[in-house]
Amino acid sequence: MTIKRFKENPIITPEDVKPYHEGFEVIGAFNAGVAEYNGETLLLMRVAERPIVDDPSIVKVPVVDPETREITIKNFSIEDDEYNFDDPRVVRRQDKLEGLSYLTSLSYVRIARSKGGIEFSIDDEPFLYPYNDYQTFGIEDPRVTKIDDTYYIDFTSVSEKGVAVSLVTTKDFESFTDQGIIFAPENKDVVLFPEKINGLYYALHRPVLKSIGNYDIWIAESPDTKHWGNHQHLAGVREGNWDEERIGAGLTPVKTSEGWVVLYHGASHQSRYCMGALLLDLEDPTRVLARSEAPFMEPEEDYEKNGFFNEVVFGCGATQKDDDSLTMYYGVADTSIAGCDISIQEIITHLKESK
Amino acid sequence: MTIKRFKENPIITPEDVKPYHEGFEVIGAFNAGVAEYNGETLLLMRVAERPIVDDPSIVKVPVVDPETREITIKNFSIEDDEYNFDDPRVVRRQDKLEGLSYLTSLSYVRIARSKGGIEFSIDDEPFLYPYNDYQTFGIEDPRVTKIDDTYYIDFTSVSEKGVAVSLVTTKDFESFTDQGIIFAPENKDVVLFPEKINGLYYALHRPVLKSIGNYDIWIAESPDTKHWGNHQHLAGVREGNWDEERIGAGLTPVKTSEGWVVLYHGASHQSRYCMGALLLDLEDPTRVLARSEAPFMEPEEDYEKNGFFNEVVFGCGATQKDDDSLTMYYGVADTSIAGCDISIQEIITHLKESK
Repeated sequence: MTIKRFKENPIITPEDVKPYHEGFEVIGAFNAGVAEYNGETLLLMRVAERPIVDDPSIVKVPVVDPETREITIKNFSIEDDEYNFDDPRVVRRQDKLEGLSYLTSLSYVRIARSKGGIEFSIDDEPFLYPYNDYQTFGIEDPRVTKIDDTYYIDFTSVSEKGVAVSLVTTKDFESFTDQGIIFAPENKDVVLFPEKINGLYYALHRPVLKSIGNYDIWIAESPDTKHWGNHQHLAGVREGNWDEERIGAGLTPVKTSEGWVVLYHGASHQSRYCMGALLLDLEDPTRVLARSEAPFMEPEEDYEKNGFFNEVVFGCGATQKDDDSLTMYYGVADTSIAGCDISIQEIITHLKESK
Repeated sequence: MTIKRFKENPIITPEDVKPYHEGFEVIGAFNAGVAEYNGETLLLMRVAERPIVDDPSIVKVPVVDPETREITIKNFSIEDDEYNFDDPRVVRRQDKLEGLSYLTSLSYVRIARSKGGIEFSIDDEPFLYPYNDYQTFGIEDPRVTKIDDTYYIDFTSVSEKGVAVSLVTTKDFESFTDQGIIFAPENKDVVLFPEKINGLYYALHRPVLKSIGNYDIWIAESPDTKHWGNHQHLAGVREGNWDEERIGAGLTPVKTSEGWVVLYHGASHQSRYCMGALLLDLEDPTRVLARSEAPFMEPEEDYEKNGFFNEVVFGCGATQKDDDSLTMYYGVADTSIAGCDISIQEIITHLKESK
């Protein structure tokens, strides 16, 4: 199928974003939730900032106080045997290498606004900045779903307590109402469906499992978007395939006459992130009707292959012009944001060919 | 404080339980949820059975088909380099030692019934036996909470999909209604409060975290017991203390004039399980008013110190005679069930002395 990447890609890079914190640099403006509001396209960007490092033997970890927005910086010597610094994004304890102890950057959500959807102007202030004790390490990867006249924004809240999924609602993208943690830790990649199905709200989520199980997509139902239950396993990783290591829902499901089209990311054991699709039954979204055998989109362009974390296309949202035209915004290489136009009909054809 | 252990302890041992599966042996009858029904004390025991092993070089893993109740036995040679057999309860993949791949026994729930609460007769048939794809490795550690005239039974469902928490309801302990998975994997140790508080149901749960965070107790709210949200961190492990490694709610919270008394288990890094208590605010159970500095109960008796997994007292339920008298039933050494009488007033005094 055809992916029409914007010729302007990447459309937003870290250089376009002024740091919010003095003494910090922006290392990522990526993985944006997307909303259409007031005739504009809004990108709810995940902005990652880190303390400027002048001494390469020191690793700095920012931790924010949600009440004062003051940041405490913990300094680690790379000589410190107790910790592991192999992955530039995190600090791990040597005795707990399967987990991680701290993040080397602080993420929050800032809005970029555009009339045409290609050239964006970026708000000076964050829209969502860590506001409670579950967010002292940051806020990551927002997704936006409009239901009736309300925008539901969920995102990952990270703190020493765990990695949980929070929900806020807004009608104006200026203020918001906190709806609390909707999925207990450890969880990620939550997207809400844009309407009730047979009287219930639905969401896809991606538990992070320790003992048994894989990085699979689950589905849950809710009477009110705040309380979730009847969790069911929806789609698993596929050993030997492009999505063998981890998968997670990306964009708000798109309603079509054939079913719900869910664009999701999948990663290989080498952490190469591609995009695939699921087709779910319109009346019963716990039923998978079709799934991409091969990805419909892979990292191909230089800006998708090289960055803070290489080989990543990671769609979190889209605008829809008509029944067929989807404009997907996607994070590239954990660094910048790119855009592309996709035909929904072509995705359905791709899904049907996948069987 | 005084723990009056039954002189008959342990009151139920694996030898008392006839295997449900031909060719299997019962290795545990422990961790029982407790209900008072029709003038009787019911213990909803976790019964663990394993295939009788005649060849010590083979490790057998039972996996049940929930539709037919047929069991497939996977045989592992202890020479197999791909797997690790150090812990007799599980089989681990060598490349994923922090997790586990299979269980060496199959657990389900069977009821023991008693008029006096000391001598029990055991049902021949299971009450809860794996009935869906989330339970192919078994059902573990049930807890029972009576709300109005309905008994809510939650338990851990284990399968290759993960370790999740399911809920069923019953009014007669003969049939039950499945309420689905209420807490997505990975989670354990869920207890429901016995009544609504300010219009909402509450439950304690214990997420199992991979990346960041500890084995801590969280609290969630629900409009209907089926859908849960507003997850909040309630109490954490305490490094250097008896509950430094993991904690989890044990018994249904007991309402007192001072607050909700929650008896919980805590384990040290050496996996020695003791029992402590939390006091939660009556009107706002997310507020911790007091917590045991030292455990109120430790493994002391031989049957608590030696068994399938040594040094464990693990309370999952109790009956209550009056405002002060609690009879706690508790799993010992992951093998058998014991009972003891506790004064609620003494627990409150113990909590107040803990500050």
